[in-house]
Amino acid sequence: MKRLFAAVSVAAVLAAAPAMAQAPDLVAVNGIFDQGFNHSEVMRTAAHLTDRIGGRMTNSPQMRETERWTQERFREWGLSNVRAEGFEFGRGWSIVRSDARMVEPRPLELRAIPVAWTPGTDGTISGEVVLAPMSRVADFDKHRGKLAGKIVMISEPTDAEDPTTPQFRRWTDEELAGRTAYVQPNHAPVTVSRDGGRDNFALRMDEFLASEGALGWVRMSYRDGGLLHGAGYTHRVGATPRLPGMELAAEDYRRLARLSRAGAAPKLELLSEVRFHDEDVNAYNVLADIPGTSRSGEYVMAGAHFDSWVAADGAVDNAAGTAVVMEAARILKALNVRPKRTIRFALWNGEEQGLHGSLAYVDRHLATRAPLGDAELDALPNGQTWRARWPVQPRDGHDDLVAYFNIDNGSGRIRGVNAEGNVAAAAVFEEWLEPFHSLGATTVSLRPAGGTDHVYMQTVGIPGFQFIQDPLDYGSRLHHTSIDSYDHLKPEDLRQAAVVLAGLLLAAANSDEPLPRMPLPTRPTPTDPFTQ
Amino acid sequence: MKRLFAAVSVAAVLAAAPAMAQAPDLVAVNGIFDQGFNHSEVMRTAAHLTDRIGGRMTNSPQMRETERWTQERFREWGLSNVRAEGFEFGRGWSIVRSDARMVEPRPLELRAIPVAWTPGTDGTISGEVVLAPMSRVADFDKHRGKLAGKIVMISEPTDAEDPTTPQFRRWTDEELAGRTAYVQPNHAPVTVSRDGGRDNFALRMDEFLASEGALGWVRMSYRDGGLLHGAGYTHRVGATPRLPGMELAAEDYRRLARLSRAGAAPKLELLSEVRFHDEDVNAYNVLADIPGTSRSGEYVMAGAHFDSWVAADGAVDNAAGTAVVMEAARILKALNVRPKRTIRFALWNGEEQGLHGSLAYVDRHLATRAPLGDAELDALPNGQTWRARWPVQPRDGHDDLVAYFNIDNGSGRIRGVNAEGNVAAAAVFEEWLEPFHSLGATTVSLRPAGGTDHVYMQTVGIPGFQFIQDPLDYGSRLHHTSIDSYDHLKPEDLRQAAVVLAGLLLAAANSDEPLPRMPLPTRPTPTDPFTQ
Repeated sequence: MKRLFAAVSVAAVLAAAPAMAQAPDLVAVNGIFDQGFNHSEVMRTAAHLTDRIGGRMTNSPQMRETERWTQERFREWGLSNVRAEGFEFGRGWSIVRSDARMVEPRPLELRAIPVAWTPGTDGTISGEVVLAPMSRVADFDKHRGKLAGKIVMISEPTDAEDPTTPQFRRWTDEELAGRTAYVQPNHAPVTVSRDGGRDNFALRMDEFLASEGALGWVRMSYRDGGLLHGAGYTHRVGATPRLPGMELAAEDYRRLARLSRAGAAPKLELLSEVRFHDEDVNAYNVLADIPGTSRSGEYVMAGAHFDSWVAADGAVDNAAGTAVVMEAARILKALNVRPKRTIRFALWNGEEQGLHGSLAYVDRHLATRAPLGDAELDALPNGQTWRARWPVQPRDGHDDLVAYFNIDNGSGRIRGVNAEGNVAAAAVFEEWLEPFHSLGATTVSLRPAGGTDHVYMQTVGIPGFQFIQDPLDYGSRLHHTSIDSYDHLKPEDLRQAAVVLAGLLLAAANSDEPLPRMPLPTRPTPTDPFTQ
Repeated sequence: MKRLFAAVSVAAVLAAAPAMAQAPDLVAVNGIFDQGFNHSEVMRTAAHLTDRIGGRMTNSPQMRETERWTQERFREWGLSNVRAEGFEFGRGWSIVRSDARMVEPRPLELRAIPVAWTPGTDGTISGEVVLAPMSRVADFDKHRGKLAGKIVMISEPTDAEDPTTPQFRRWTDEELAGRTAYVQPNHAPVTVSRDGGRDNFALRMDEFLASEGALGWVRMSYRDGGLLHGAGYTHRVGATPRLPGMELAAEDYRRLARLSRAGAAPKLELLSEVRFHDEDVNAYNVLADIPGTSRSGEYVMAGAHFDSWVAADGAVDNAAGTAVVMEAARILKALNVRPKRTIRFALWNGEEQGLHGSLAYVDRHLATRAPLGDAELDALPNGQTWRARWPVQPRDGHDDLVAYFNIDNGSGRIRGVNAEGNVAAAAVFEEWLEPFHSLGATTVSLRPAGGTDHVYMQTVGIPGFQFIQDPLDYGSRLHHTSIDSYDHLKPEDLRQAAVVLAGLLLAAANSDEPLPRMPLPTRPTPTDPFTQ
């Protein structure tokens, strides 16, 4: 069904735009297969990023080493114009050690991780817990006067979940076929919050807890099974909270909540030893090129964010994508390709806190957006107002970037491309994917894929795409968790992904015509006509 | 299909033994439903065993409290003859605190638990790791001379598993129907090891490592996902190892192994603070009765082991079964039943280390087995030679115990009974289960169910049975793991199980004829005629 549908699409578009069709260079594909399957370095790259460097929080010492090491690799492989491009991010933060124990009513080691960008405990702190769930400012009043000297449990405990679906899966052909249909976008009105959203709530809660004399706070992991995350967002200079916060395993948190409700007065000992790193508040994207031989200025780009959280080693999110992008660079360079257009490889920083690195690149090189004309709002971090600002204001380099491919969905092999509603590009992708059908990369979907670094490209009319990857156990148990380590990477899948990516990059760099674009985005009409 | 099959079985047997059929007392069942569903205490009992007491290792302070508290409950509920029956087990052991960190090549908190009955580290120990997998004595030579001052990684690291099946499931009607067929037993020759099996290997490895000057050892968890277990078996007096041992999460262990192989010389800090408890080397089963009104001496019995491991709180294994057995007692006592036969409730100790508590009961009250006549072998712990010793020698009380029901398969509701090849009993169970069909308890299987406390009853010809329970996530992620806590218990299921158990106990206690038995076991003919 999918194949038939695809064939119809291609035929329809080819009739309208015959110049776009171009047979893939199968000899080049042979070279890519050879480098990618017989001389792969992708797992060696991934092992260094995960086992050796470990979790790579933006602006942490581990990320500084990653910024250095990735550039060194690109240079060793002979890429050109290898460089780091800085953007303001905030403070670095890293964990030295941590521990959490229940000491009353009985001794028990708990599973815990410091919440990112909260301060340490300055030695072990010890106190009774108090269950005081809060998720908005209005909740503070309920707990006022009860928190002094306490460790505050800020999450409402939820019931355990029953894992009734397999954690690990691959797309079936039927499921892939089901993804090809166009999905109409939903345009809700974009609102801009003056109080800065989640960062601000974290800071207001911190202020409240500190003023109440609380010792610190713990929250519940949002996944069962003892998994931890530790995500936090208060990384801006001057926005560091006063109290330490730790995340507890759901099972440990729920036990504490039950004991507390049953009157057993559980008491905790918490140790969080963390460091802040303020030497440089800039984070750096790493860029490297294979220069084009003609069509001066035009380039195609592949990117992946190379920062991660620190509950484990940031393997599937996103050493996987990083290693695939780097491997595609290595493959193409090893083949000594001479593409018409430049091929650029980008490793984005600060993705986990809001796609900061790719937005910085977009704003610097591709397009910006008009200010709102409200001094307070226009002083907010770029990403907080970006979507509310119109019109898009293309920069000089806007037309140069003809296609952007992003990888950030774990270590599952590439099963196709999400064409983001770009029907004309979809028809081209059908052609370009042909040599990779035998690797399982068959599907062109018109769907959008959100949540990662191609998104800001899309907001300014750059053809930016994320691949369809086999989901494996990315979303179910690895994404941002304490078990996101090298063991759960799939070597065959990552080799395949690097081969497919290298192939598409080369096709995009050498095609006679640039990949078709969507019209430059303008303010959408709200889907619900009764909103404004 | 299942129903048809069942009906045929019952009809066939009824024709042969009409005296056995007896309509269930439905008025009594009404009372059981009322107590079990409207006045249930099962979750309160489970909460106390798990949240308040926690992991209940045999002879630990937590188990001493459990022995006391369960007797107190039975007495409060008005049961008779509440008592603790001791048997020699060995030392108690409990964890005070533990911690494991990688300090080189980078700092990282590891997930770890002390291995049961290994000594503590006496403060933090610190050393490089050496990968030296060993699973039999012949492996020692490979590693000799390389272990001094090292923390030894004794497991061969295996690859991560892909969780492609759902962790949580219930039996479908089709699956239940598939379980009713008779499965022929396989009789392999029984061998008796002079060296005592796994305990002995642990001790010989300990001796080897200590003589080599190793600091301690770590092993890999046998489950992925950061789950821990910590099982160990060196609980006998005089058999305590010299070196501390800890289990690491599979992800943490594999990372260490990779770093070690890559030449990164990982270094660990381990802290294991544990206590041994030698005040009393006996463990105690707890027994309580509802006395019979006639048929003096005959009794029916329900049992569950109430000991657990300590990685979490021993919830599904086996606070669940313990709470169900206790709740069945509470229900029947609250209804003030006057059964013909005594109904006995048994909480077994030392199950996790080899069904020691139920074996002690069998050997004391039901039957023993002839000695082998080899002084060395006959001095081994009872369970190590039991199955090799013939003939079975019934004790005076052998005929008194007419039916034993065991619960030890997690918190899944009862879907039926495993009749252990006892065709005559199966026909009776079909009758007895009838009033509980609406609760999902419908299936009588002829299959045996191994691995828990009814097994030794079976070995001496007592009709001992384990229920068919919905598997839920017992085997997949909870059994013996660090997330076996109260959250994963299913209140509706446990209430149902207590109701069904109470109903079956009452039926068995009041039936005109005792439940049919299998012939007294004699030495089986080996299935393979070429073995002896």
